[in-house]
Amino acid sequence: MAKLTTDIFKLRPHHCGISVPDLEASVTWYRDMLGFSVEKRGTIEAANAKIALIKHGDFCIELFEVAGATPMPESRRYPNQDIATHGTKHIAFEVQDLRKLMDTMKQRGVDVAMDLLVMEDILVAFIRDNSGILIEFIEHLDRK
Amino acid sequence: MAKLTTDIFKLRPHHCGISVPDLEASVTWYRDMLGFSVEKRGTIEAANAKIALIKHGDFCIELFEVAGATPMPESRRYPNQDIATHGTKHIAFEVQDLRKLMDTMKQRGVDVAMDLLVMEDILVAFIRDNSGILIEFIEHLDRK
Repeated sequence: MAKLTTDIFKLRPHHCGISVPDLEASVTWYRDMLGFSVEKRGTIEAANAKIALIKHGDFCIELFEVAGATPMPESRRYPNQDIATHGTKHIAFEVQDLRKLMDTMKQRGVDVAMDLLVMEDILVAFIRDNSGILIEFIEHLDRK
Repeated sequence: MAKLTTDIFKLRPHHCGISVPDLEASVTWYRDMLGFSVEKRGTIEAANAKIALIKHGDFCIELFEVAGATPMPESRRYPNQDIATHGTKHIAFEVQDLRKLMDTMKQRGVDVAMDLLVMEDILVAFIRDNSGILIEFIEHLDRK
Protein backbone atom coordinates (compact mmCIF):
# COMPACT_ATOMS: atom_id res chain seq x y z
CA MET A 1 0.00 0.00 0.00
CA ALA A 2 2.83 2.38 0.83
CA LYS A 3 4.23 2.11 -2.67
CA LEU A 4 0.83 2.64 -4.26
CA THR A 5 0.33 5.81 -2.28
CA THR A 6 3.73 7.08 -3.41
CA ASP A 7 2.98 6.31 -7.04
CA ILE A 8 -0.31 8.19 -6.96
CA PHE A 9 1.53 11.39 -6.13
CA LYS A 10 4.33 10.99 -8.64
CA LEU A 11 3.83 14.02 -10.89
CA ARG A 12 5.79 14.34 -14.13
CA PRO A 13 5.62 17.72 -15.86
CA HIS A 14 3.90 16.85 -19.14
CA HIS A 15 2.94 20.10 -20.84
CA CYS A 16 2.15 23.75 -20.52
CA GLY A 17 -0.99 25.01 -22.25
CA ILE A 18 -0.62 28.20 -24.31
CA SER A 19 -3.42 29.91 -26.24
CA VAL A 20 -2.27 31.63 -29.43
CA PRO A 21 -3.86 33.65 -32.24
CA ASP A 22 -2.32 31.64 -35.11
CA LEU A 23 -1.64 27.94 -34.50
CA GLU A 24 0.44 27.35 -37.63
CA ALA A 25 2.57 30.45 -37.08
CA SER A 26 3.26 29.26 -33.52
CA VAL A 27 4.08 25.69 -34.59
CA THR A 28 6.60 27.14 -37.04
CA TRP A 29 8.10 29.56 -34.49
CA TYR A 30 8.57 26.94 -31.75
CA ARG A 31 10.10 24.57 -34.33
CA ASP A 32 12.51 27.09 -35.85
CA MET A 33 13.47 28.95 -32.69
CA LEU A 34 13.46 26.26 -29.97
CA GLY A 35 13.36 22.89 -31.77
CA PHE A 36 9.86 21.70 -30.85
CA SER A 37 8.20 19.23 -33.23
CA VAL A 38 4.54 18.37 -33.67
CA GLU A 39 3.52 15.30 -31.67
CA LYS A 40 -0.23 15.40 -32.26
CA ARG A 41 -2.95 17.61 -33.68
CA GLY A 42 -6.59 17.73 -32.74
CA THR A 43 -9.65 19.80 -31.92
CA ILE A 44 -11.79 20.49 -28.85
CA GLU A 45 -15.23 21.07 -30.32
CA ALA A 46 -16.75 22.27 -27.02
CA ALA A 47 -14.14 25.04 -26.91
CA ASN A 48 -14.10 25.76 -30.66
CA ALA A 49 -10.37 25.09 -30.51
CA LYS A 50 -7.70 23.67 -32.76
CA ILE A 51 -4.79 22.07 -30.91
CA ALA A 52 -1.20 21.18 -31.65
CA LEU A 53 0.82 19.28 -29.06
CA ILE A 54 4.46 20.15 -29.75
CA LYS A 55 7.31 18.29 -28.09
CA HIS A 56 10.92 18.96 -27.07
CA GLY A 57 12.63 16.14 -25.18
CA ASP A 58 10.04 14.74 -22.77
CA PHE A 59 8.06 17.95 -22.37
CA CYS A 60 5.29 19.37 -24.54
CA ILE A 61 3.61 22.69 -25.15
CA GLU A 62 -0.09 22.38 -25.95
CA LEU A 63 -0.94 25.16 -28.37
CA PHE A 64 -4.59 26.20 -28.64
CA GLU A 65 -6.13 28.37 -31.34
CA VAL A 66 -9.66 29.33 -30.30
CA ALA A 67 -11.97 30.98 -32.82
CA GLY A 68 -12.83 34.53 -31.73
CA ALA A 69 -10.45 34.46 -28.74
CA THR A 70 -9.65 37.60 -26.76
CA PRO A 71 -6.16 39.06 -27.24
CA MET A 72 -3.69 38.74 -24.37
CA PRO A 73 -3.66 41.75 -22.03
CA GLU A 74 -0.67 44.01 -22.75
CA SER A 75 0.59 43.61 -19.16
CA ARG A 76 1.29 39.94 -19.81
CA ARG A 77 4.19 40.92 -22.11
CA TYR A 78 6.28 42.14 -19.13
CA PRO A 79 7.44 39.67 -16.44
CA ASN A 80 6.97 42.01 -13.47
CA GLN A 81 3.61 43.34 -14.70
CA ASP A 82 2.38 39.86 -15.58
CA ILE A 83 2.73 38.54 -12.03
CA ALA A 84 0.67 41.51 -10.75
CA THR A 85 -2.46 39.63 -11.88
CA HIS A 86 -3.18 36.29 -10.19
CA GLY A 87 -3.09 33.08 -12.21
CA THR A 88 -0.71 30.82 -14.15
CA LYS A 89 2.02 33.03 -15.62
CA HIS A 90 4.92 31.41 -17.52
CA ILE A 91 6.82 28.23 -18.19
CA ALA A 92 10.55 28.28 -17.44
CA PHE A 93 13.20 26.01 -18.95
CA GLU A 94 16.61 25.29 -17.47
CA VAL A 95 19.42 25.42 -19.98
CA GLN A 96 23.13 24.63 -19.82
CA ASP A 97 24.53 27.84 -21.26
CA LEU A 98 22.08 30.72 -21.16
CA ARG A 99 24.52 33.28 -22.57
CA LYS A 100 25.02 31.13 -25.68
CA LEU A 101 21.29 30.47 -25.99
CA MET A 102 20.45 34.18 -25.73
CA ASP A 103 23.13 35.00 -28.32
CA THR A 104 21.42 32.55 -30.65
CA MET A 105 17.95 33.91 -29.84
CA LYS A 106 19.14 37.42 -30.70
CA GLN A 107 20.76 36.23 -33.93
CA ARG A 108 17.40 34.72 -34.83
CA GLY A 109 15.60 37.99 -34.13
CA VAL A 110 13.70 36.72 -31.07
CA ASP A 111 12.05 39.42 -28.95
CA VAL A 112 13.92 39.69 -25.63
CA ALA A 113 11.63 40.67 -22.73
CA MET A 114 14.30 40.62 -20.02
CA ASP A 115 17.95 40.15 -20.84
CA LEU A 116 20.45 38.20 -18.74
CA LEU A 117 20.10 38.94 -15.04
CA VAL A 118 21.95 37.27 -12.18
CA MET A 119 19.60 36.46 -9.29
CA GLU A 120 21.73 34.96 -6.50
CA ASP A 121 22.78 31.53 -7.81
CA ILE A 122 20.88 31.60 -11.09
CA LEU A 123 21.07 33.44 -14.38
CA VAL A 124 17.65 34.40 -15.76
CA ALA A 125 16.24 35.75 -19.04
CA PHE A 126 12.80 36.09 -20.61
CA ILE A 127 11.94 36.02 -24.30
CA ARG A 128 8.59 36.52 -26.03
CA ASP A 129 7.31 33.99 -28.54
CA ASN A 130 5.82 35.09 -31.89
CA SER A 131 2.56 36.00 -30.08
CA GLY A 132 4.27 38.06 -27.36
CA ILE A 133 3.93 35.29 -24.76
CA LEU A 134 6.68 35.15 -22.14
CA ILE A 135 9.06 32.19 -21.84
CA GLU A 136 11.69 32.12 -19.12
CA PHE A 137 15.12 30.51 -19.26
CA ILE A 138 17.35 29.87 -16.28
CA GLU A 139 20.84 28.54 -15.77
CA HIS A 140 22.10 27.34 -12.39
CA LEU A 141 25.42 29.08 -11.83
CA ASP A 142 26.27 26.93 -8.80
CA ARG A 143 26.30 23.66 -10.76
CA LYS A 144 29.36 24.39 -12.90
CA MET B 1 30.78 22.36 -32.47
CA ALA B 2 27.89 20.06 -33.31
CA LYS B 3 27.60 18.92 -29.72
CA LEU B 4 27.72 22.47 -28.40
CA THR B 5 24.85 23.47 -30.66
CA THR B 6 22.79 20.54 -29.41
CA ASP B 7 23.49 21.40 -25.78
CA ILE B 8 22.40 25.01 -26.23
CA PHE B 9 18.94 23.83 -27.19
CA LYS B 10 18.54 21.24 -24.47
CA LEU B 11 15.56 22.59 -22.52
CA ARG B 12 14.62 21.02 -19.19
CA PRO B 13 11.24 22.08 -17.77
CA HIS B 14 12.27 23.82 -14.54
CA HIS B 15 9.22 25.60 -13.18
CA CYS B 16 5.86 27.15 -13.85
CA GLY B 17 5.24 30.62 -12.42
CA ILE B 18 1.92 31.14 -10.62
CA SER B 19 0.76 34.40 -9.01
CA VAL B 20 -1.37 33.92 -5.90
CA PRO B 21 -3.16 36.14 -3.39
CA ASP B 22 -1.72 34.42 -0.26
CA LEU B 23 1.75 32.89 -0.53
CA GLU B 24 1.65 30.98 2.77
CA ALA B 25 -1.82 29.57 2.12
CA SER B 26 -0.59 28.34 -1.29
CA VAL B 27 2.64 26.85 0.11
CA THR B 28 0.49 24.91 2.59
CA TRP B 29 -2.03 23.80 -0.03
CA TYR B 30 0.59 22.54 -2.52
CA ARG B 31 2.37 20.74 0.33
CA ASP B 32 -0.72 19.07 1.79
CA MET B 33 -2.54 18.29 -1.45
CA LEU B 34 0.25 17.50 -3.92
CA GLY B 35 3.42 17.00 -1.87
CA PHE B 36 5.44 20.06 -2.91
CA SER B 37 8.08 21.31 -0.43
CA VAL B 38 9.71 24.72 -0.17
CA GLU B 39 13.05 24.86 -1.98
CA LYS B 40 13.78 28.57 -1.64
CA ARG B 41 12.15 31.83 -0.58
CA GLY B 42 12.91 35.33 -1.75
CA THR B 43 11.65 38.68 -2.95
CA ILE B 44 11.67 40.67 -6.19
CA GLU B 45 11.79 44.26 -5.02
CA ALA B 46 11.18 45.75 -8.48
CA ALA B 47 7.88 43.80 -8.64
CA ASN B 48 6.94 44.23 -4.97
CA ALA B 49 6.76 40.44 -4.83
CA LYS B 50 7.39 37.71 -2.29
CA ILE B 51 8.41 34.38 -3.82
CA ALA B 52 8.41 30.74 -2.77
CA LEU B 53 9.97 28.16 -5.06
CA ILE B 54 8.27 24.87 -4.21
CA LYS B 55 9.52 21.54 -5.54
CA HIS B 56 8.11 18.11 -6.37
CA GLY B 57 10.60 15.67 -7.90
CA ASP B 58 12.70 17.68 -10.38
CA PHE B 59 10.06 20.29 -11.14
CA CYS B 60 9.15 23.47 -9.29
CA ILE B 61 6.28 25.88 -9.05
CA GLU B 62 7.36 29.47 -8.47
CA LEU B 63 4.68 31.12 -6.34
CA PHE B 64 4.49 34.92 -6.40
CA GLU B 65 2.55 37.11 -4.00
CA VAL B 66 2.49 40.67 -5.32
CA ALA B 67 1.22 43.48 -3.08
CA GLY B 68 -1.95 45.01 -4.54
CA ALA B 69 -2.23 42.45 -7.35
CA THR B 70 -5.32 42.20 -9.53
CA PRO B 71 -7.57 39.16 -8.94
CA MET B 72 -7.63 36.46 -11.61
CA PRO B 73 -10.41 36.92 -14.18
CA GLU B 74 -13.33 34.55 -13.44
CA SER B 75 -13.01 32.95 -16.91
CA ARG B 76 -9.62 31.51 -15.91
CA ARG B 77 -11.38 29.09 -13.52
CA TYR B 78 -12.84 27.09 -16.45
CA PRO B 79 -10.53 25.22 -18.86
CA ASN B 80 -12.52 25.94 -22.03
CA GLN B 81 -13.12 29.59 -21.14
CA ASP B 82 -9.53 30.09 -20.06
CA ILE B 83 -8.09 29.17 -23.45
CA ALA B 84 -10.42 31.72 -25.10
CA THR B 85 -7.96 34.43 -24.03
CA HIS B 86 -4.44 34.27 -25.49
CA GLY B 87 -1.48 33.64 -23.19
CA THR B 88 0.05 30.98 -20.95
CA LYS B 89 -2.81 28.94 -19.48
CA HIS B 90 -2.01 25.92 -17.28
CA ILE B 91 0.61 23.42 -16.22
CA ALA B 92 -0.24 19.74 -16.74
CA PHE B 93 1.26 16.79 -14.88
CA GLU B 94 1.30 13.21 -16.08
CA VAL B 95 0.37 10.70 -13.40
CA GLN B 96 0.31 6.91 -13.26
CA ASP B 97 -3.23 6.38 -12.01
CA LEU B 98 -5.46 9.38 -12.51
CA ARG B 99 -8.61 7.68 -11.15
CA LYS B 100 -6.85 6.99 -7.85
CA LEU B 101 -5.36 10.49 -7.73
CA MET B 102 -8.76 12.10 -8.33
CA ASP B 103 -10.34 9.88 -5.65
CA THR B 104 -7.73 11.19 -3.24
CA MET B 105 -8.20 14.79 -4.39
CA LYS B 106 -11.94 14.49 -3.75
CA GLN B 107 -11.37 12.91 -0.33
CA ARG B 108 -9.18 15.92 0.49
CA GLY B 109 -11.92 18.33 -0.59
CA VAL B 110 -10.06 19.64 -3.66
CA ASP B 111 -12.16 21.68 -6.09
CA VAL B 112 -12.62 19.66 -9.31
CA ALA B 113 -12.87 21.87 -12.41
CA MET B 114 -13.25 19.05 -14.94
CA ASP B 115 -13.68 15.46 -13.84
CA LEU B 116 -12.20 12.44 -15.60
CA LEU B 117 -12.61 12.62 -19.36
CA VAL B 118 -11.25 10.21 -21.96
CA MET B 119 -9.72 12.08 -24.92
CA GLU B 120 -8.56 9.48 -27.43
CA ASP B 121 -5.55 7.80 -25.79
CA ILE B 122 -5.40 9.94 -22.66
CA LEU B 123 -7.45 10.41 -19.51
CA VAL B 124 -7.70 14.06 -18.44
CA ALA B 125 -8.90 15.99 -15.38
CA PHE B 126 -8.55 19.55 -14.07
CA ILE B 127 -8.52 20.66 -10.46
CA ARG B 128 -8.36 24.17 -8.99
CA ASP B 129 -5.78 25.07 -6.36
CA ASN B 130 -6.73 27.02 -3.22
CA SER B 131 -6.76 30.25 -5.31
CA GLY B 132 -8.97 28.81 -8.06
CA ILE B 133 -6.02 28.33 -10.45
CA LEU B 134 -6.34 25.41 -12.87
CA ILE B 135 -3.98 22.42 -12.76
CA GLU B 136 -4.34 19.62 -15.30
CA PHE B 137 -3.55 15.95 -14.81
CA ILE B 138 -3.26 13.41 -17.59
CA GLU B 139 -2.73 9.68 -17.76
CA HIS B 140 -1.61 7.91 -20.93
CA LEU B 141 -4.03 5.02 -21.42
CA ASP B 142 -1.95 3.47 -24.23
CA ARG B 143 1.09 2.88 -22.02
CA LYS B 144 -0.46 0.23 -19.75
